Amino acid sequence: MSRRIRRTPYTSVVEKLGVKGFSVVNHMLLPKAFQSSIEDDYWHLKEHVQIWDVSCQRQVEVVGPDASRLVQLMTPRNISSCQVGQCMYIPIIDNNAGLINDPVLLKLADDHFWLSIADSDVLLYAKGIAIGKGYDVSIDEPDVYPLAIQGPKSEKLLSKIFGSHLREISFFKFGYIDFLNTRQIIARSGYSRQGGFEIYLKGAHLGEKLWQKIWNIGQEFNIKPGCPNLIERIEGGLFSYGNEMTRENNPLEIGLEKYCTLDDTINYIGRDSLKKIAKKGVQRQIRGILFGKNPCHTCSTPWPVKIGDETIGAITSAVWSPRLKANVGLSMIDKNYWDEGQCVNVLLDNKELMFGEVVNPPF
Amino acid sequence: MSRRIRRTPYTSVVEKLGVKGFSVVNHMLLPKAFQSSIEDDYWHLKEHVQIWDVSCQRQVEVVGPDASRLVQLMTPRNISSCQVGQCMYIPIIDNNAGLINDPVLLKLADDHFWLSIADSDVLLYAKGIAIGKGYDVSIDEPDVYPLAIQGPKSEKLLSKIFGSHLREISFFKFGYIDFLNTRQIIARSGYSRQGGFEIYLKGAHLGEKLWQKIWNIGQEFNIKPGCPNLIERIEGGLFSYGNEMTRENNPLEIGLEKYCTLDDTINYIGRDSLKKIAKKGVQRQIRGILFGKNPCHTCSTPWPVKIGDETIGAITSAVWSPRLKANVGLSMIDKNYWDEGQCVNVLLDNKELMFGEVVNPPF
Repeated sequence: MSRRIRRTPYTSVVEKLGVKGFSVVNHMLLPKAFQSSIEDDYWHLKEHVQIWDVSCQRQVEVVGPDASRLVQLMTPRNISSCQVGQCMYIPIIDNNAGLINDPVLLKLADDHFWLSIADSDVLLYAKGIAIGKGYDVSIDEPDVYPLAIQGPKSEKLLSKIFGSHLREISFFKFGYIDFLNTRQIIARSGYSRQGGFEIYLKGAHLGEKLWQKIWNIGQEFNIKPGCPNLIERIEGGLFSYGNEMTRENNPLEIGLEKYCTLDDTINYIGRDSLKKIAKKGVQRQIRGILFGKNPCHTCSTPWPVKIGDETIGAITSAVWSPRLKANVGLSMIDKNYWDEGQCVNVLLDNKELMFGEVVNPPF
Repeated sequence: MSRRIRRTPYTSVVEKLGVKGFSVVNHMLLPKAFQSSIEDDYWHLKEHVQIWDVSCQRQVEVVGPDASRLVQLMTPRNISSCQVGQCMYIPIIDNNAGLINDPVLLKLADDHFWLSIADSDVLLYAKGIAIGKGYDVSIDEPDVYPLAIQGPKSEKLLSKIFGSHLREISFFKFGYIDFLNTRQIIARSGYSRQGGFEIYLKGAHLGEKLWQKIWNIGQEFNIKPGCPNLIERIEGGLFSYGNEMTRENNPLEIGLEKYCTLDDTINYIGRDSLKKIAKKGVQRQIRGILFGKNPCHTCSTPWPVKIGDETIGAITSAVWSPRLKANVGLSMIDKNYWDEGQCVNVLLDNKELMFGEVVNPPF
């Protein structure tokens, strides 16, 4: 490990708690596994509460007179209805309507936004546009390190620590908590379908203290350290930038129509391309694939989805589902074959063929 | 590992050759270590020849009528003298003169460039600027995977395989080789001070064949698989984006004055900021630190460099040098203390204090 791959304010704590490996997202460490198996973590997440170091969800802060104009230019989603205190999932695209990222937007004030990003340097894209356009806006990465508390017991745990006003925060809204005389943003959000919160901790020096506070009180709720769980994510139909979508994909292929403004009411980069694609209709779209009767290994290169000799898609994430007793995967699927129930074959690493069917996620 | 962290055309081969770990650069795998120690690799690299998978040096292709205008806008280095067939090291900066990347520019034609990048999404910065400016230019990542052949026997090995015309390619120039009826770019360049070449292989499907060809003929030259060697890199004073420099640093702090145009002969982003910094004079600059009599461990967070209680810098990369029998490190050092021979203390991980001195790299 070098400094280039940044540690987080929580890295020392997760090391003490026995983290077994890291991935790298946005040039920063993301814990990948702890002592227990991914399957045990999956069941635990569905029943109790977990604490995740998701500092790698870096914030791109956009602030200034042209902030809202810049953010709108980057996304096909109309952000004019976004209220202060609201989170909004916004696909970001380029001039060809290729996906560049799919962050969560936080509106802190009318001229002040955070983009909580997936794995690509959105800051550089925003800077480039702002410089090119001559916008009056400042773009930076604040000293903020999201900590996720996920699982059905999250609300009970956090309201015990920070107060019952948390219960009033509805999904994809944010409020504030006090921690050691600082005011911190907390949103009802997170990369799971089990409910929970994300604390956007400002101030790296507070990291270990915040973790420890939640960890200590969390003991009575059977808290465990965790990380985004691959089984839960795929079953829940949560897509991952870099896996299910890249710059080769447009938002309509990812099923994001409802976030795409396809008339001319707003101006954004890639609008003409996206309208053209919409008019023609997408030729492929993301689907779930339920396949095989034995656990597959890790999908590190796309696995072709086939009907006979014809390749009709490629699985980009897959894992064994202990609940469904089959593998669950996510794949682009050609238009002619994307109906639920379509029978397919999955070719794993050019070796093993598994039988499966098309499913509309969530599984 | 997930698809998000991309394998390269050579990954399967390095796995067969016993790679012991990977790092991640530009969302892609970079081998970090093989069977032998970093010290054995160091001595081998200085004497023989190594083959490195540096596919993670992604190419950002800029092509079209405004290509040269866009590239010039991104760097303070005057590129007007760059010839077709030439490589040029160009720092890329933002509006505050903060470093965004430090790629090698390859000029393929007057309207056609590749930026062979360090670890940040330069493609997004370039796209943002081009879109903002309305430039007539296309920006993409081509199907190109650099393979480095480094060490004193590189030229002998490669000219035996691809022909003696390679000997005519001078430092930071590129030419062409034929491989399986394809024409491939080869440059005399690479991330070591031991001489060598980089083949910019176009066509992922050719990767294993190219490696195998070089590997087979390389046996008589005692070829080994390798990767950028930390000892050789630090001793040689080769800086690494994300380690020695980030957006917090300007090119003058990194000693890149000779690549910075500080008058108004060219127009580039950050020019006013850089001129202002130059006029005032930099307050800190990169230096080498030779310290300690016992091997240090990995520097994964910066180590303060101190004189008494005062912190005058921070080491961002460090390793034991078997040749110098001391640790070698790279650090920003405050102006008042940056003269060669200045005695300092290095505080490793808030624990151990080692005595050292300031050195002008290369060591």
